[in-house]
Amino acid sequence: MGMQIAIDAMGGDFAPRNVIAGALDALREAGNRFEIIFVGNEERIRQEIHPGQSEGNHLAYTIVHAPQTIEMADSPTAALKAKKRSSIVVGIQLHKEGKANAFVSAGNTGAVMAASTLILGRIPGVARPTIGAFLPSEGGACLLLDAGANVDCRPRHLLEFAVMGTVYARSMLNYQNPSVGLLNIGEESTKGDERSLEAFELLSNSKLHFIGNVEGRDILKGKANVIICDGFVGNIILKFGESLLTTLMKRFQDHATRNFLKRVWNSLVYDTIKKMLWDFDYQVFGGVPFLGVNGISIIGHGGSTPKAIKNMILRAEEMVKKNIQREIEHGIRKV
Amino acid sequence: MGMQIAIDAMGGDFAPRNVIAGALDALREAGNRFEIIFVGNEERIRQEIHPGQSEGNHLAYTIVHAPQTIEMADSPTAALKAKKRSSIVVGIQLHKEGKANAFVSAGNTGAVMAASTLILGRIPGVARPTIGAFLPSEGGACLLLDAGANVDCRPRHLLEFAVMGTVYARSMLNYQNPSVGLLNIGEESTKGDERSLEAFELLSNSKLHFIGNVEGRDILKGKANVIICDGFVGNIILKFGESLLTTLMKRFQDHATRNFLKRVWNSLVYDTIKKMLWDFDYQVFGGVPFLGVNGISIIGHGGSTPKAIKNMILRAEEMVKKNIQREIEHGIRKV
Repeated sequence: MGMQIAIDAMGGDFAPRNVIAGALDALREAGNRFEIIFVGNEERIRQEIHPGQSEGNHLAYTIVHAPQTIEMADSPTAALKAKKRSSIVVGIQLHKEGKANAFVSAGNTGAVMAASTLILGRIPGVARPTIGAFLPSEGGACLLLDAGANVDCRPRHLLEFAVMGTVYARSMLNYQNPSVGLLNIGEESTKGDERSLEAFELLSNSKLHFIGNVEGRDILKGKANVIICDGFVGNIILKFGESLLTTLMKRFQDHATRNFLKRVWNSLVYDTIKKMLWDFDYQVFGGVPFLGVNGISIIGHGGSTPKAIKNMILRAEEMVKKNIQREIEHGIRKV
Repeated sequence: MGMQIAIDAMGGDFAPRNVIAGALDALREAGNRFEIIFVGNEERIRQEIHPGQSEGNHLAYTIVHAPQTIEMADSPTAALKAKKRSSIVVGIQLHKEGKANAFVSAGNTGAVMAASTLILGRIPGVARPTIGAFLPSEGGACLLLDAGANVDCRPRHLLEFAVMGTVYARSMLNYQNPSVGLLNIGEESTKGDERSLEAFELLSNSKLHFIGNVEGRDILKGKANVIICDGFVGNIILKFGESLLTTLMKRFQDHATRNFLKRVWNSLVYDTIKKMLWDFDYQVFGGVPFLGVNGISIIGHGGSTPKAIKNMILRAEEMVKKNIQREIEHGIRKV
């Protein structure tokens, strides 16, 4: 039997429209290498699949009905209790039961994380599944973990993040021997808060390619392929970075009132900042890495475009093929 | 007797040249409202004061000899032990003994902080003196505390930072009723790590103008005049923000290879980013706020220009006049 990828048809700000458009594109691009299972309100899904869309292509999809939808604004824990027949829960259960090899959602991030952890369980040895983020850097994409899923991390958790990040960077970003940096306030091993000091020790004694502390100013310099931090710091950095670029974009726009400047603005300034903003955006990478659960569960941005959905699905296929969770299990066992 | 301001003539990358040039400029601009005490190697100071510089102006300065210099790269604790006759230690002692109303240095930040705390002592009720940083925001300058001086802060320390930041923002930045935000990973009071949850409670029960949590994306939006965080987070944000702007500047430069674009680059892009970078730079503000010690000790950037030095001295005068440390003592007593 071929590969099956379950997708939350109801997840995201523009669901089911964008989800279905993106998923059908993925099937077209992949030439039916895998099958899509749309999970959600069957009637709405059928409405969205226009006769022309799949015509002549024999696109390989099925539908599994799930009558409930977890909204973007729902509290994850409350929603999981109240909506056991939601597309998120039903979809992840399909994966758990082996009826799908992966689950993909652009819906409520907290709910997908919680449901995945609850239903799929954690990879043996992993205390805390983690979410990563991609940052632009001089040496290519840099993977920052944890991006906000885990606060009050203990040093051991940071070590686990480092293992998971290394596996992901090697398998999915094609770094041969990914370097790992610990985000800290100084380069010396004696710098930082208590957590960092202990984590430094653990990382030094691991067999990872640990290059020591990296500072805030090093993140974009490509000093490390994988950067490890507590989710409190990670979340604040990411949101701050995005807003800094947005602010700058607005300032340029204020300047560019004259027609001449407007043209220059469009061709140069806007493009460059936009590119940098995109680098921050996990849509392009096909979802954020969500690592540590015993399965492949891909989380995308609520505002995902069809293209982003397509990339998420292709990314899921790749993760299944590369058997990421077994790689992580193996890596965790070694530290 | 008039006001006396002691300045570390040997502090900074371009000392004593920039220090003396800036200090004499301050005297000229202030019309001798105060007197400068140059602290450092007397011979080198005299060499630097060219006959033309003070001619006809009767600039009011004296020199106090200090034979040792703490270098920028020295370890603060080791340097303080070994160099008891350094310009930093001698200068702060002058302040302690009442022979100077304030001390100003562009030298080794750690050494100035440590010596100030040791010699001047802390304001009653303040457990940890703090260093702030200015960030550009839509509503004017935003003061972020702690900028990296204190890690492993307890919630009570964050409350103290909030009090000190409020006093500074009111007295020195002219905000009538400065709003205080707690840097966190969500707006709700239930969000964040343990430290933030407790700090939220303390701040809510204080009589400060606490507006709740602010996220990384809110920093530049002017949501709060004063933003409170642990120095670990503060340091990383500041360094990351600076490097993001520098990276962007470099990317634009790479684009601007043609002559036409070069001109646009200079007039538009470069200026805007430069301005934003300057906003980050405490030279313009005349040193970073260093609050909580029982005295006025101003710390500047190692690369301070004469203009930055001049601003630091004028800022010191203002802080003395406004009696900042008594305001802080009063504020701390109230919480």
